[in-house]
Amino acid sequence: MILHGYFRSSASWRVRIVLALKGLSAGQAFHHLRLGQHRLPDYLALNPQGFVPSLETDDGTVLTQSMAICEYLDEIAPLPPLLPGDPVTRARIRAFSQVIACDIHPIHNLRMLKRVTGYGIDQGDWARQVIAEGFDALETLVADETGPFAFGTAPTLADVMLVPQMASARRFDVEMRWPRLAAIEAACLALPAFADTAPAQQPDAE
Amino acid sequence: MILHGYFRSSASWRVRIVLALKGLSAGQAFHHLRLGQHRLPDYLALNPQGFVPSLETDDGTVLTQSMAICEYLDEIAPLPPLLPGDPVTRARIRAFSQVIACDIHPIHNLRMLKRVTGYGIDQGDWARQVIAEGFDALETLVADETGPFAFGTAPTLADVMLVPQMASARRFDVEMRWPRLAAIEAACLALPAFADTAPAQQPDAE
Repeated sequence: MILHGYFRSSASWRVRIVLALKGLSAGQAFHHLRLGQHRLPDYLALNPQGFVPSLETDDGTVLTQSMAICEYLDEIAPLPPLLPGDPVTRARIRAFSQVIACDIHPIHNLRMLKRVTGYGIDQGDWARQVIAEGFDALETLVADETGPFAFGTAPTLADVMLVPQMASARRFDVEMRWPRLAAIEAACLALPAFADTAPAQQPDAE
Repeated sequence: MILHGYFRSSASWRVRIVLALKGLSAGQAFHHLRLGQHRLPDYLALNPQGFVPSLETDDGTVLTQSMAICEYLDEIAPLPPLLPGDPVTRARIRAFSQVIACDIHPIHNLRMLKRVTGYGIDQGDWARQVIAEGFDALETLVADETGPFAFGTAPTLADVMLVPQMASARRFDVEMRWPRLAAIEAACLALPAFADTAPAQQPDAE
């Protein structure tokens, strides 16, 4: 397998975490987003959105959308499970994940920041507002959970999604005021699967 | 079960389609978005984002995020499957769905249009641009599929996500130039599960 990504892309980090949790190995191809390498024809032929990550499987099939890639990896390597428990628990893990995947990250990713800058909007203000609204909801969604991870005593897809988003929040100087989310992040970053896959540890980090 | 929704919410329509495909029945509670009923304290206690839909299960558990709700319904009522096939096929169906759920719909939903209007941006221009970019990618993702549905001869989660998004595109006067997507939509709307759950058919339609 080859993971097409970029060190600072939080969606790429999600997939790196899952590969590490599952003990799977993949080659890496790096596409420098700020240099526009994800918009080159060769990459657009792999991923028509021009987004990272993409995952090339061993038979050359290209999978796109990070959450779909994470669930694919969970299906081909079921242990440890990203979506443990009964259907209600799984739905709650998915909902937490989708708050990030649908309502936080795509609203302030590089594509969107370029778009809003074109309208004269301050990127930082935009990102901080979107992230804070989303984190308020996330904190409530796990308010009754006992931890140390988002849903129980082992990391799930929810944790995979949260940790890169927390790092993005810090990059935008969001004032961090969500104690449950902070505790979950700390529990995750004590694990090599999260810490060793962080952007700063990547070969293409600047 | 009780589905909390709004007739014109495309995310609510997704869940109505899945309930119909599965032959499941649910009561409906209506929350008028343009009147701000989704921001009332009683509803925020159910759904901390104040979004529709939410699904209350028979034991009172509240599930949020429409795609998570669709997958929950797929797990408690597996037939017909929303995610048929091998892990690669399932990943492709999920990726198609997530282009809509992550990169199209949340960028032009009511919450976002209010936000951009606050910055003096034309809502229609914003929505048309986001939808067209996303549809270009979707058309490519199913270019090699033979239909009549997005992935094969029966509707999947991809179709559930596409049909409401096509309706939104028309509402924003997007110039429709995606023949595969149009053919998929036509195949879907020939089925009662899609046609009878359309916004105009709902009790709260205006």
